[in-house]
Amino acid sequence: MGSPERIRNVAKRVAKWSRAGHQMVVVPSAMSGETNRLLGLAREVSPSGSSPELLRELDMIASTGEQVSVGLLAIALQAEGIQAVSYAGWQVPIKTDSAFTKARIQSIDDQRVRADLAAGKVVVITGFQGVDEHNNITTLGRGGSDTSAVAVAAALKADECLIYTDVDGVYTTDPRIVPEARRLSSISFEEMLEMASLGSKVLQIRSVEFAGKYRVPMRVLSSFTPWDIDIAEEAQSGTLITFEEDVKMEQAVVSGIAFNRDEAKISLIGVPDRPGIAFQILGPVAEANIDVDVIIQNMSHDGKTDFSFTVHRNEYARTIDLLQNVVLPSVGGAQVSGDPKICKVSIVGIGMRSHVGVASKMFGTLSAEGINIQMITTSEIKTSVVIDEKYMELAVRSLHKAFDLEQAPV
Amino acid sequence: MGSPERIRNVAKRVAKWSRAGHQMVVVPSAMSGETNRLLGLAREVSPSGSSPELLRELDMIASTGEQVSVGLLAIALQAEGIQAVSYAGWQVPIKTDSAFTKARIQSIDDQRVRADLAAGKVVVITGFQGVDEHNNITTLGRGGSDTSAVAVAAALKADECLIYTDVDGVYTTDPRIVPEARRLSSISFEEMLEMASLGSKVLQIRSVEFAGKYRVPMRVLSSFTPWDIDIAEEAQSGTLITFEEDVKMEQAVVSGIAFNRDEAKISLIGVPDRPGIAFQILGPVAEANIDVDVIIQNMSHDGKTDFSFTVHRNEYARTIDLLQNVVLPSVGGAQVSGDPKICKVSIVGIGMRSHVGVASKMFGTLSAEGINIQMITTSEIKTSVVIDEKYMELAVRSLHKAFDLEQAPV
Repeated sequence: MGSPERIRNVAKRVAKWSRAGHQMVVVPSAMSGETNRLLGLAREVSPSGSSPELLRELDMIASTGEQVSVGLLAIALQAEGIQAVSYAGWQVPIKTDSAFTKARIQSIDDQRVRADLAAGKVVVITGFQGVDEHNNITTLGRGGSDTSAVAVAAALKADECLIYTDVDGVYTTDPRIVPEARRLSSISFEEMLEMASLGSKVLQIRSVEFAGKYRVPMRVLSSFTPWDIDIAEEAQSGTLITFEEDVKMEQAVVSGIAFNRDEAKISLIGVPDRPGIAFQILGPVAEANIDVDVIIQNMSHDGKTDFSFTVHRNEYARTIDLLQNVVLPSVGGAQVSGDPKICKVSIVGIGMRSHVGVASKMFGTLSAEGINIQMITTSEIKTSVVIDEKYMELAVRSLHKAFDLEQAPV
Repeated sequence: MGSPERIRNVAKRVAKWSRAGHQMVVVPSAMSGETNRLLGLAREVSPSGSSPELLRELDMIASTGEQVSVGLLAIALQAEGIQAVSYAGWQVPIKTDSAFTKARIQSIDDQRVRADLAAGKVVVITGFQGVDEHNNITTLGRGGSDTSAVAVAAALKADECLIYTDVDGVYTTDPRIVPEARRLSSISFEEMLEMASLGSKVLQIRSVEFAGKYRVPMRVLSSFTPWDIDIAEEAQSGTLITFEEDVKMEQAVVSGIAFNRDEAKISLIGVPDRPGIAFQILGPVAEANIDVDVIIQNMSHDGKTDFSFTVHRNEYARTIDLLQNVVLPSVGGAQVSGDPKICKVSIVGIGMRSHVGVASKMFGTLSAEGINIQMITTSEIKTSVVIDEKYMELAVRSLHKAFDLEQAPV
């Protein structure tokens, strides 16, 4: 939704689907740059602060970007001869909690929307926002429009939730790093969740969680496809995020390689190995609102153990401080060390559940390239390693090749 | 509210009043140019149309301008250390009818606002907008922020409604035409109504009507006064629009000279003088949504009369067409003539009620300047003449002098 011209094209695309007999609910984002412009104004007026009262007002301000978009898209649809009506989150209503700037959707009333659909209208709903129990406007935080779309699709039990993005689907890995990366025609919800949380920024992780919770089939497809391509072709484009039982999945062992270089590693060495030690270390970190990703505690020697975890790189200095000044005095005897120049590389695949040797193939591949592994964690469908950031591209490329991801599975 | 800098100044002014112990409700306008920008976007997306569905979406879009303003002003107040909360019209709620883009306020619920005021908060409410019975956002039309402010003041039984404008009060006439024009320290509601409707564009006429209906004392004052002037001085600045019984009025016979050059004169000459003729002429005009201002029908001769009225100059050609093609065929025998190059000049004053000879002094003054009077209408507190537009400045200046308006009354 970059310009009036783009909005008219979105309207034409929606009109095509509507004329083909589909009941359509559309959740557009704000016009490009608009949310930043609005929050920039707010910062000019009041450069600092994070009180709930301030955050409430930021939501009042930021939510207008989407409100303008839905109005513009509705009139663009009307100009196409399609009956259309727009709603702000509070008009649906999309009820959320009161966590301003990062609210969570609690419920969606589908009555008004269903009545409009039954009357033949296309309904255009603001993404990114809702209303709390006191009729305050809330926003879901950056990227919340995806989550809104999935939530609305769930409430209406939509056949499919189409997410138009600036990429044409989910790839085996980032094509900027591996030119041979291949678009997946489908991916399981669990794999997508791992891919998204591991730094494949196609979809906001919360939207994928939502889709999983309510079993909403999502399709990621490109908003740059011409609006007038054949509807059957468009319906098969992009990547379908689906559920194992729904669709026969591609039978690859590994579906994709994810990576994330926003993390930093922190270790406490020589921690007394006693019950409650993990809570003693991570309790203060959580209280300081620092998100921890990977956590590793290995076996102990002589009553001492090493405890490592990763945090967002922006929180590295603050976390080190906290450990030195708050945690160490109470834990005693340990040393803090850390490294902000690491990255995490993961192989993700539902096939790993039933195939042995996948992790060891990963380790062997990295070893053959001379890449030292600093940390390892595994789950049922992914194996992640933390390595020196400078090896990231090399690791991703060699793993992509080792698992034959440039080839479509037979 | 032109810039973040200006918004911070508004906040400082409000904070000053608040710290002085006043309970404050503020109704800011949109940032300058914002409403035009938003409606411009809408026109780019869909250049034409006026269906209720389209108008509803225009209100969705246009109402965001004020929503951004209230959020920004609230955080600017918070930055001043003042507790502040903003509300969109629907959150108060300000209930209106469903006439999108020109809705009328029906009721204002004061509960939420009163609770905030009692808790020591400044309340910032969007002007220009409300919500209809179906939870659709409505706007009051251009300049509706003044009306919102007065309506909120009425609902809360405010002591005074301060309207900050780009002028420092109501003048005896336009100082651009008569440099000796003098600011009135007070003016009666009835006079203000005549001055506003006659083209003194200080206040939107609807806001004055509203103030009269609910007897809300309004003060027009300048938003360019430094925010830190002494509060007692600011409280006495500008012009108070008041009610006869409230305040001893300035005892001038004439309070001001109003004028309007947006009108055009149309006459039907030789109309059969029979019952219902006025309706036969003006019915079709009203149906075509053309506003008629002055209407004059003089005594008849030989069963024929002349019927004249004025319309907005933009409607001149359309009105002439309508009379030729729709009215004349049914009325018969009459001739249409008109003149788009006229203006209306009026003297306004509550003192006229009890002073004879005011109108004749007006006519004498114009006659002495050689200005021919084409039409005359009078009401209890004003006398208006229609004259050739080229004499407008001369007429205003000579009347201002003749009624001693450059002198404060004793």
